Amino acid sequence: MLTPSVENALIESLAAGLPRSPFQLNRLQEADAEILSLPGASGVRLALTTDTIAEEIQTGLYAHPWLIGWMTVIASLSDLAAVGAVPLGILIAETLPASITPAFLRSLQEGIGDACRAHATPVLGGDTNIGDVMSLTGCAVGLLDGGKVLTRLGCTPGDLLFTSGPIGTGNAFAFARLGGQAATAPNYRPEARIREGQTVRRYASACMDSSDGVLATLDQLLRVNGTGFLLEPGWEDTLDSASRQLLRQFGLPEWFLLAGPHGEFELLFTIPARDEGAFLGEANRHKWNPIRLGRVLGEPEIRLEADGRPGLDTGAIRNLTTSVRPSLDDCLAALRAIEAERRRDCRTEATETRRTNGLTSVPDAGPPRRKP
Amino acid sequence: MLTPSVENALIESLAAGLPRSPFQLNRLQEADAEILSLPGASGVRLALTTDTIAEEIQTGLYAHPWLIGWMTVIASLSDLAAVGAVPLGILIAETLPASITPAFLRSLQEGIGDACRAHATPVLGGDTNIGDVMSLTGCAVGLLDGGKVLTRLGCTPGDLLFTSGPIGTGNAFAFARLGGQAATAPNYRPEARIREGQTVRRYASACMDSSDGVLATLDQLLRVNGTGFLLEPGWEDTLDSASRQLLRQFGLPEWFLLAGPHGEFELLFTIPARDEGAFLGEANRHKWNPIRLGRVLGEPEIRLEADGRPGLDTGAIRNLTTSVRPSLDDCLAALRAIEAERRRDCRTEATETRRTNGLTSVPDAGPPRRKP
Repeated sequence: MLTPSVENALIESLAAGLPRSPFQLNRLQEADAEILSLPGASGVRLALTTDTIAEEIQTGLYAHPWLIGWMTVIASLSDLAAVGAVPLGILIAETLPASITPAFLRSLQEGIGDACRAHATPVLGGDTNIGDVMSLTGCAVGLLDGGKVLTRLGCTPGDLLFTSGPIGTGNAFAFARLGGQAATAPNYRPEARIREGQTVRRYASACMDSSDGVLATLDQLLRVNGTGFLLEPGWEDTLDSASRQLLRQFGLPEWFLLAGPHGEFELLFTIPARDEGAFLGEANRHKWNPIRLGRVLGEPEIRLEADGRPGLDTGAIRNLTTSVRPSLDDCLAALRAIEAERRRDCRTEATETRRTNGLTSVPDAGPPRRKP
Repeated sequence: MLTPSVENALIESLAAGLPRSPFQLNRLQEADAEILSLPGASGVRLALTTDTIAEEIQTGLYAHPWLIGWMTVIASLSDLAAVGAVPLGILIAETLPASITPAFLRSLQEGIGDACRAHATPVLGGDTNIGDVMSLTGCAVGLLDGGKVLTRLGCTPGDLLFTSGPIGTGNAFAFARLGGQAATAPNYRPEARIREGQTVRRYASACMDSSDGVLATLDQLLRVNGTGFLLEPGWEDTLDSASRQLLRQFGLPEWFLLAGPHGEFELLFTIPARDEGAFLGEANRHKWNPIRLGRVLGEPEIRLEADGRPGLDTGAIRNLTTSVRPSLDDCLAALRAIEAERRRDCRTEATETRRTNGLTSVPDAGPPRRKP
């Protein structure tokens, strides 16, 4: 069912034949950050990660220099959060056009500085280059004590799926910005869930941040674990309310907020059912309210509800946005086609159910009613 | 005399107001790699560095995918070498155009893999993006034991200046590639001087790699230390012979090989005079022959010879290539103007010497003879 996304294929192709480290505790694509035991320093582990902000600038998704700086830091720190590491610092490689203005540069650096201060993360160093196209790469390093290693791998059917906070904001922001509706864009200033990640690490069986959108995250967890995910009825209530309102205003199904490739850097993680109480107790002591989103399935498919609709082809949805750089309109058209198919399948299933029940005439059921 | 180069100014502007780490053992611009003591792991230190290869691709300096991959690794590992660290691994963030061919990608990854294997460095992970302009960023992490901290800071007048190997190859390669003489380009496949860096660390007072060319490296050491550098007569013999021949063929002064911004990733380092014997003894035991290039001066100026020519304005020379992206022709024209001025100054000094000696008529001395 799931064709591997182009990025996965690319990473696998890039990694084939490259030497690996005997000190690394995770395999390829199995963790948001690379986890290393340190030879000669018993019990201390490093978490390392790198992330580039380039496409977001080129497409105009991130236009304000402060946001570009802020996101450069968040993208890397969020990966540390997803393995439960405490940031030791960040290096930032900047490629800037020669035409950059002092005001732009000042705001860019303010965004970097504000994000670092908000997450108690020092800037260790970096690299600066002049180039035609602006691009910023963060490389963050964090520390882990000798406890459990938290990666994307490890969930089992029956585990509960949580998000660290409201979801959908990343795609609502992208929809507004790239669709010529910038004025309606929800406030987008994600934080890396560093403190939450440390609690998650003690209880979770698997964790990944939603930087590429919720469906892409679940799709990756599916590939790594061989499990599926069910977003239980009521999952729409985990959507950021402004984002939800925006989609409604444009008459789009709310699950589109999960489908785009631009996320909100929340942690998506799984908790064994028996540990739910202890986990929620500790979270509440930290004044944090994780939101239950669904549960882990045995079959490798991603379902939004329990109403008989088929699973989403999340591999195909990921490919929509990673194989080429599509226009927003093309992307929405493809998602609408998937939605239409889902409704048709749903009606067909309903028809078959009615036939089984002895009904001979089948009225048009219309689109299924969504939860209010 | 020395105007700060644009990159220095940029780095200082970028770093102003950013939070710094209490665990960091070097200050801004004082080391090729950032050196951190590890809280909770006594005696273990990390070296971290990041470098982007983008402009080299855009200008056509690096065109072969294998070389792009190789250089992405070398640029970061060479920074580890300059602080004497042992590589623990590297992360690589790649921004690739959607139109990349499988053959190009394969060769790029072979370059990365070959460089990693040649330097016993595992690839820990990375990030892949689709973008209009190709750009690769390496982020390397290395380990240091609790010994001496080697940075760019620490040389004093009288220390001896060494290079780990022949110099000038980077600029000869750039001259040939960008000047439409690709067929005459010298073989360019620099290695990171990891093993040599570990010996250098035990003896040197300061060290920096020549990644930006020799004069830019010396200029940076000058700024950090407040000292100057004299390349002693015979320094031309430290030039790579093919590179030297190429410059002669085009009638260019050999010091142009030091002046361009593209280096050969040798280590430039200073050894206290009293330690020269012990250092060379250990180097020779490792079958390595470091080359003595000159010595450290008390005055902050960079002189090529002891023949009375004035110091080079290395700040201005750095600005030639970093403030804007000049054409090779513009760069050569500016360097030729500096050379003409140096010759004129030299003749003026000779004239004044003769006048002092009572000579009344001054024959045209012609350009000073260069060493054969």
